Parts: sequence; C-alpha cells; structure tokens
Amino acid sequence: MPQSNESVTAFDAGTAVRRTPDGGLAAELDPGWDVGGSILNGGYLLAVIGRAAVLDSPHPHPVAVSASYLRATGPGPVTLTVTPGPAGRTLAHASVVLAGDGGASLSAQVTTATLGDDAPVYSRPMPDIPPVEECLSARAGDNLGGHPVPAIGLRERVETRLDPATAGWAMGRPSGEPVMRAWVRLADGREPDPLALLLFADVLPPTSWSVGLMGWAPTVQLQVLVRALPAPGWCLVEASASEIAGGWLDEDYRIWDSTGRLVAQSRQLARAPR
Amino acid sequence: MPQSNESVTAFDAGTAVRRTPDGGLAAELDPGWDVGGSILNGGYLLAVIGRAAVLDSPHPHPVAVSASYLRATGPGPVTLTVTPGPAGRTLAHASVVLAGDGGASLSAQVTTATLGDDAPVYSRPMPDIPPVEECLSARAGDNLGGHPVPAIGLRERVETRLDPATAGWAMGRPSGEPVMRAWVRLADGREPDPLALLLFADVLPPTSWSVGLMGWAPTVQLQVLVRALPAPGWCLVEASASEIAGGWLDEDYRIWDSTGRLVAQSRQLARAPR
Repeated sequence: MPQSNESVTAFDAGTAVRRTPDGGLAAELDPGWDVGGSILNGGYLLAVIGRAAVLDSPHPHPVAVSASYLRATGPGPVTLTVTPGPAGRTLAHASVVLAGDGGASLSAQVTTATLGDDAPVYSRPMPDIPPVEECLSARAGDNLGGHPVPAIGLRERVETRLDPATAGWAMGRPSGEPVMRAWVRLADGREPDPLALLLFADVLPPTSWSVGLMGWAPTVQLQVLVRALPAPGWCLVEASASEIAGGWLDEDYRIWDSTGRLVAQSRQLARAPR
Repeated sequence: MPQSNESVTAFDAGTAVRRTPDGGLAAELDPGWDVGGSILNGGYLLAVIGRAAVLDSPHPHPVAVSASYLRATGPGPVTLTVTPGPAGRTLAHASVVLAGDGGASLSAQVTTATLGDDAPVYSRPMPDIPPVEECLSARAGDNLGGHPVPAIGLRERVETRLDPATAGWAMGRPSGEPVMRAWVRLADGREPDPLALLLFADVLPPTSWSVGLMGWAPTVQLQVLVRALPAPGWCLVEASASEIAGGWLDEDYRIWDSTGRLVAQSRQLARAPR
C-alpha cells in the first residue's frame, strides 16, 4: 500500500473502487463491516455500489439506489459492472452489478445527480429525541440490561447511540412497537456524505427486535434516496416497520443531519426472523 | 383478436405480455393509460414489468419491484427482456428491461414470491377516512371548485374518490401539507391483485399539488413492495411527501385493501414541479 493511504479512513478504504487493467472496476470487500460471521452489512455494500456508479457518471452524488440482494456477500475481491443509461444535465442512470466468486450478489439501479444546498420547500421535521449524550452507547458486546449488543464489526465501525425510548429490546423489555431511533456517526471520525448515508440506511438492528423477534432479517431489496448533502456531525436515524407478516418485514428509514434536515430515506423488504 | 379476448378487462388487456416467435417477450402499450399527452402512467408500466417477471418465475407474485424511469414512455409495441437471477423455494430475483423504439425506457429489479394469507404479526392500521360514498369523485375534466381534474386516461380507467380532507387543491385551497388519500378501484370492475397494486402505487396526482405546485412530477425511480393479496373491493391509497427541495420530491404510498389490511407500500423519487 502506498504511504499516502495511511490517512484514508476505514470507510473510504473499505469502499474503494479501482479500475482494473482491462478497463473494469474492482473492489476488495473489508471483513470489518460484518453483521455476524462473514456476512457483510447491506448498507456497506450499497456504498461500494454507489462509489462505482459515480466513478462513471457525469454527476457526483447517488440520489436513488435500489438493489436486490441476490445472495449473502462475504469479504474479498469483487468486480463491479456499470452499464450506463441515459445521462443529462440534471441526472444520469446506470445499472450496477457487484459479483464475487459465487457470481452476482447485488444487482442495482442507480440514479446520480448533483445535490445542492437549496432550502427545502417542505421538509418533514426531525422527531424529538434526547441529545447524543443522553442516549445509550451500543458497542459490540455491551450488555444494556438484557440482550447483549451483538459483537459485529458494523457496530465497531459506526458509533451508535440508541434513543432510550426505543431501546427496550436491549434491556429485555421489547416495546411491542417496531421502531428504533439512534444517533450514528463513523467511528473513524469521517464526516457524513451521500456515500455514508447509503451505509446509514441499513445500520440499525431489525426493528422486529422491538416486537421480540430477535433473529437476523436478511435484506431482499433496498431502496435509498439521498435528499441533501449532510452537515458534519452525528446523523439521526429512525427505522420503523409497517407490517410483519408471512415471513416478511419492511424497514423504513428516515435520516436527519446534525442541523435537523432530512437528508435520506430508505425502504427495504427483508425476511422476518422466525 | 380472438373472440375470447372480449371478456378480458382493460387492465389485463393493456398489461398483456406475449411470447414472440424468437422466445422473447413483447407487449403493446395501450394509449388509454396516459397521464397527459402520450405519456403513460408509471404504475401502469410497472404492472407490465411485473407481468413479464412472473411469466418466467417459479413464483406467481411480484413482492418487490424497483424501476428506474430512463425516459418518458408512450404507447405502442415494446419488448421485455427478463434476466433471471437466483431462484429458490421462498423467492426469485430477476432484472427486467422494457424497451421501445427509442431504446430502453424502464430498467427494473424484481423479486417474486408466493404470497399467502398469514395473519400479520404487526400491521400499521389504516388511517381513519370517510367511506367511499362521502368522498369526492374525481373524474377527468370534473371541476370540484377550483383546479379541474386533468383529462387524462388514467383517471378514466381508475375510479378515484378523494378524501375531502386532502382534496383542498381541487377546490383552489391547497392544504399546505403534501398528503393525499383516496379510495381507488379499476373502473372495468376487475378486482385488485398484486399487479393492480403496482398500478395503484403511482395512481394519485403529485402530493406537491397540496402545497400549490400544480405541474407534473415525472418519476425518476419507484420501488413498490406488495405485502399481501388484496381482498376484493376498493383500496385506500395514502400518498405523502417527506421533502420537497432542490427540484426533487419523494412520494411515499401506503395501500390498504377493503378489509383494512396493509397490502402494498411504495416510494418514488420524482422531479418536483417548478
């Protein structure tokens, strides 16, 4: 590794996409972004997809990314195949496929654009939650009084402070309402940007934990919309489910930056824990 | 046309997908599903995509569909290219591209599965709105007291009864809150199913009309999740925006069936009217 890379953050290093001699794109997926065993976090993978899409776009920001999670993805080398679609002054489209040894594992539609700093005509206000210092630090392995916070890499890489009102599951008292809120930031000090928002769009435990279903909920399809450039500092993430039925779960995220501006939204369909 | 087709509904005829002699798939897009001029409704196009995806899947229902709208799509012949992904007992993945004379106009990720009739573990309750007979019939050309309902084909094909509480825009008094609710059903009497839910996921006027921005809002990317098989009868559609800023608008839909069960959700990124 060249010495200059030593100042690259864990997030930028782990999502780096490089051109290969044959003109393709490749990345080395970092085992540190796991959600258990060797399975990598879906938001982390989406950030790699976003980085590949902007490399080949006239626009710098992913504003809409929809990915199907074809199979669980582990660490190691992957290729990224970007197929450009129509591109104009306002936005550009592309399809991106991320593939490893086992074949394609993510297939995504990406729209890129250039986000500005326009004041919103309308913006849903941020929910009222306690400040960061009054929220519960959820580090891998912490036991907040009930179910220990799983010892996963994601929770080391993203500082996560749970709103006590939605953290009953961590104290053995699930609230019965599938809602979670938390302040998050990258543990390495890197400030948020649209790529980090793709990560944050799948950063919390499944909201089904709040109704007592404590297993993992593998993502089937995830859409993220990035709405504005986030200000430096903590982001507030709110996740909620509208329906848990027939083995399926949705997760709806809204993300606000430190100034209280809505900066991203996401929705995923996942398999519900049994 | 064979005589037996005379009993086929406008929705089924307009979304029909046939195999071509070379083994491909083709459809004839029906000009009656327009949203003005010769531009076809995005939900209608998604239903055509969904029908192509289930034709080549071991599973009968589209449960997650994400499409990028690459260019405006008019009526006439199109081809559908389905690229199957991994398929298992629970779900199957595919990519689908819809292309006309001008090239690809929709590129989509589709997950298919087999929806059952399991009672939900958790389900967000339906909002409290007046019964169908107390809502406002919005037919193309009607003037409800202010802005006439645009004379578009979609509004003829889908009976739309607006909740008076969210129909201020139609009476020249936009509420200032980007929310719309309406009862909807296919005008030809066809009962709802997962394909009709794909149509309903983009069936209302832009919610930006409720903040006084009365132009069209072209869809950029739309994700629809189908959560359950809808019961016969009217469906309730609620659309809301979380942020209108920088020329962008989101539209978040929830759809309940006549029994009050949440049956679909969608979110789209659109260009906001000026």
